[in-house]
Amino acid sequence: MQKLKVIKIGGNVIDNPDKLQVFLREFAAIQGLKILVHGGGKVATKVAAGLGIEAVMIDGRRVTDGRMLEVVTMVYGGTINKGIVSSLQALGCNAIGLTGADGGFITALRRSAVPVDYGFVGDPVGVNLATAQVLLGNGLVPIVAPLTYADGALLNTNADTVAQTVATALSRVFSTELIYLFEKRGVLRDVNNDDSVIEYITPAILQQLKADGVVDKGMLPKLENAFAAIDAGVHQVNIGQTIICNTIS
Amino acid sequence: MQKLKVIKIGGNVIDNPDKLQVFLREFAAIQGLKILVHGGGKVATKVAAGLGIEAVMIDGRRVTDGRMLEVVTMVYGGTINKGIVSSLQALGCNAIGLTGADGGFITALRRSAVPVDYGFVGDPVGVNLATAQVLLGNGLVPIVAPLTYADGALLNTNADTVAQTVATALSRVFSTELIYLFEKRGVLRDVNNDDSVIEYITPAILQQLKADGVVDKGMLPKLENAFAAIDAGVHQVNIGQTIICNTIS
Repeated sequence: MQKLKVIKIGGNVIDNPDKLQVFLREFAAIQGLKILVHGGGKVATKVAAGLGIEAVMIDGRRVTDGRMLEVVTMVYGGTINKGIVSSLQALGCNAIGLTGADGGFITALRRSAVPVDYGFVGDPVGVNLATAQVLLGNGLVPIVAPLTYADGALLNTNADTVAQTVATALSRVFSTELIYLFEKRGVLRDVNNDDSVIEYITPAILQQLKADGVVDKGMLPKLENAFAAIDAGVHQVNIGQTIICNTIS
Repeated sequence: MQKLKVIKIGGNVIDNPDKLQVFLREFAAIQGLKILVHGGGKVATKVAAGLGIEAVMIDGRRVTDGRMLEVVTMVYGGTINKGIVSSLQALGCNAIGLTGADGGFITALRRSAVPVDYGFVGDPVGVNLATAQVLLGNGLVPIVAPLTYADGALLNTNADTVAQTVATALSRVFSTELIYLFEKRGVLRDVNNDDSVIEYITPAILQQLKADGVVDKGMLPKLENAFAAIDAGVHQVNIGQTIICNTIS
């Protein structure tokens, strides 16, 4: 099986032009098959505010109403996605931007309005392997916005989930590695100590870390996402600050 | 040679949801290879106004300054492009959205600031045939935004020019037909009489129409674009209100 890296970046990279440029140079230099999934960042909030659209929150979570869907479509699918694609092309990487609708790449179900109506939010249900294989097989590098697709419309979707969905689906045809880049050097034993990176995590180690109350609450969903990916066939997951980082398998 | 249709739609279709839906159903039903090029429309002006960005004009022509480039990137590359792609997917057409940067599809030169500085505006210089052939050859239908690419950045480009550039370049590998859809039923002998469509136009006929002062000034650039495409190898050009319309060759 050919190897494939699926790399996810979030706001901490996207919102910082210098960091983004450093990352894109590293990404462009990766040999072999690769896919980049990007999150949102502060641009969407800024554009929404500029257009007089107020963020609606329920229990601390953002609601994607119709106007916010328009904003994330333009910002995630336009501004951020095309900015990354343009920069990568200049670095000699033959990037091509995708939302879930493009080539039918990621279909989703709109999340039920019961018990909480988060609006136009999608939970991925399928990845179009043919589209991925055509692009990857011809030297094109998919750059994926966190927007999935259902019934003629885009849906806002968590970028970690998009990355996990893509990596999991493609593990049927590639030996897939999933890499979550974030603001810390890795999963930390002590969230205030950057030198406390836990180098290697297995399900048994995770159980121990949870029992000891070591892992930060904010990290748990990411770790559970990571193990779900491993259970579903992804070869290994890395979580950290650079493309070379600690390993979960 | 395989046949390919390159169809361009502008604001009169894009700004009218009912017209757009009718057109997209017709487009989805076209058999064989096809590419859709879309223009801008009123959404960009609306978003710019909402964000407090004033349109700068020189001699009646819009200037694309840095902030307006951000707006057209999000609106053309995001809102309009992804709206069309999503609708077409729901109609069973395997659409994939592209700007000039995606797959290095359309490279351009930024227009000289002398004699008039129109800002971030590009004149196309090349089309990536490999990208087009990979997509078309695998049943994907390119939906092209009027944004070209140079040196790591997008540039605003006239959609008629984008369509002509794509059709011309692809006429090297496909028997290409270029179709400009606009608000009139075709090239009219009398701009106020919709029944005065000129069914067939050759260079000799165009000379006569110009000599007679028959063709509307607004139509001349479109006709000159059309004949430039024919001269460069495009098989035939149609200008009109529906996909079946009058012919230039």
